[in-house]
Amino acid sequence: MDIKKELGKFKKRIDPEIEKVLNKAILDSKDEGKLITDSLKQVKKIVLSGGKRLRPALMYWGYKGVGGKNDKEILKTAVSIELIHIFLLIHDDVIDNDPKRHGVETIHHRYEKIGRVFPGIGENARHFGNSMGIIVGDIISAIGNQVIYKSKFSTDLIVKALNRLQSIVSVVAVGEAQDVIIEYRRKASEKEVMDMYRNKTAKYTIEGPLHLGAILGGADESVLKGITEFSVPIGVAFQIQDDILGIYGSEKKIGKPVGSDIREGKQTILVVKALKNANVSQKRKLELFLGKEDITKKEVEEFRNLIIETGALDYARNLAQKLINEGKNQVEKLKFNRETKEYLLAIADYMTDRDI
Amino acid sequence: MDIKKELGKFKKRIDPEIEKVLNKAILDSKDEGKLITDSLKQVKKIVLSGGKRLRPALMYWGYKGVGGKNDKEILKTAVSIELIHIFLLIHDDVIDNDPKRHGVETIHHRYEKIGRVFPGIGENARHFGNSMGIIVGDIISAIGNQVIYKSKFSTDLIVKALNRLQSIVSVVAVGEAQDVIIEYRRKASEKEVMDMYRNKTAKYTIEGPLHLGAILGGADESVLKGITEFSVPIGVAFQIQDDILGIYGSEKKIGKPVGSDIREGKQTILVVKALKNANVSQKRKLELFLGKEDITKKEVEEFRNLIIETGALDYARNLAQKLINEGKNQVEKLKFNRETKEYLLAIADYMTDRDI
Repeated sequence: MDIKKELGKFKKRIDPEIEKVLNKAILDSKDEGKLITDSLKQVKKIVLSGGKRLRPALMYWGYKGVGGKNDKEILKTAVSIELIHIFLLIHDDVIDNDPKRHGVETIHHRYEKIGRVFPGIGENARHFGNSMGIIVGDIISAIGNQVIYKSKFSTDLIVKALNRLQSIVSVVAVGEAQDVIIEYRRKASEKEVMDMYRNKTAKYTIEGPLHLGAILGGADESVLKGITEFSVPIGVAFQIQDDILGIYGSEKKIGKPVGSDIREGKQTILVVKALKNANVSQKRKLELFLGKEDITKKEVEEFRNLIIETGALDYARNLAQKLINEGKNQVEKLKFNRETKEYLLAIADYMTDRDI
Repeated sequence: MDIKKELGKFKKRIDPEIEKVLNKAILDSKDEGKLITDSLKQVKKIVLSGGKRLRPALMYWGYKGVGGKNDKEILKTAVSIELIHIFLLIHDDVIDNDPKRHGVETIHHRYEKIGRVFPGIGENARHFGNSMGIIVGDIISAIGNQVIYKSKFSTDLIVKALNRLQSIVSVVAVGEAQDVIIEYRRKASEKEVMDMYRNKTAKYTIEGPLHLGAILGGADESVLKGITEFSVPIGVAFQIQDDILGIYGSEKKIGKPVGSDIREGKQTILVVKALKNANVSQKRKLELFLGKEDITKKEVEEFRNLIIETGALDYARNLAQKLINEGKNQVEKLKFNRETKEYLLAIADYMTDRDI
């Protein structure tokens, strides 16, 4: 199965639904002042400029996998998880100081610029931008939740799904806090990094969406448990691949400048392992480059080599592959229909095959 | 009726329920790292250090007013709106740079201090603190939502209430954005200020909680409409009183330093009206004091006099009183039981009688 093609096909089906929800929010905001409407338009621009729609696709497949029949309704409802994702990204962009997302200005960055024209604002423009980022994120979160309430599934299923959705948000927020703490502390154990990957990525990106769909399709606890056993290893592998791409990927494909993970001093499994295995001089160099704002191209190259020389790249690749196999072994045990099992097997391979 | 005493009695009943929910969250977080647990403990400390519990009290009375009988369940469920309030306050404290809430360190301020010990963090400690504030707010939002899902009301009522809760969050976030925009722009019309009051305070603090309770008690649309007609004028009056206290209240009672609203350059109805009515020399002085970081006690006194001399204080007081009367006239029309009507009449007077 060509999973990239399948995801592309799904994106074409869900994007108009996402657009509908955001268009309605933009229309509803017309009495609330120009900047509110403007901010929602910017959100729409960010959403539609990129993204693989992996989470709504998994929500959709989770539903179909357990035999759900209402195609139209699950497609509309799957918009919720993408909007929750956008809310988290808007907050995340404030936290990470990212000026762009898929080449489009982030909310906080846009309002920092807009704020600069206010008289006497000076240095506070940045804080104004961040404030708008926090608030607009909160608005999108509310809209994302409401998409589920308004769906036509039975209220029993909706409450169950919503409860699950909030625990997803809790878990990813905990993962985000772990990430921020590790980043600022500039020190982490392998266990701390793996815990953070489990919360921030695996439970959020893979398990959560599959659970939401399966719940709306009427799945019981045993099905959900099976999904967890598939999702957690697969999701951790997804994050490991992200970290590898963060250091070795091309700017064009991953959409952020080469070396930005190194410049940010990101404590990934690669970095933690390299620091652990490094000899004295390797360690000194790694520590010198990590968080170096003005890192040169040559230094990025040197950093990449150090990750290889210390065995960290091999370690991470092998670990990811082991996790993929672990996840794939769980697929046969899932109480899912054949077609969805094929999707999940392909998704599992995609976690490490992708270059984007 | 002594409404302060009634609110005090209600607070004694609901605080143990709030504590239970937060204690469980603290316990559940024990595997997620020390700082996560620490942050939830800090949230508990902030919540229990003060606050009138006006929102959960209104949610409770909204339920009882339409004939709701399950006292125990509504009390447990009313914890949700207080947690949503705390989530919004945590974000608000980041936005407003407030170091303390009820004399207790705010989340972002606490983590700015904790972050300072991380090596090489320097100026980024503030951003680390703000990041933790954003994330911890998001976690509390999720917990607040889950309190409703887990309640024993019928799922139909729960979905209706949750939908309402999210529209409350949307509206207050819009109001907060309007507030931030007005504050940084340092210029607002009376209409803009009143719009912001309606969203940020009236719909959020009064209408929302009453609606939530009434919905869980089985109220229909006509009851909700009646509540809106009572709540909006009352709630705007509440905010006007807040603004008056912000300029004329004592530090001990309102819990923030004298003149801090002036120092922040807050565009309240008092300020907007005073600027409009002022002659050239009065206007120059008002503009000089607004946003003056090192404003002296004497200047605060002078500012207070200018608000009086321009007629802005009288205008605001009369407007608030007119709105209170408007709201009170709606009470008799409400399909609420007698006892609850008495509460609402007392709450209406309390909006402008209070000095805290």
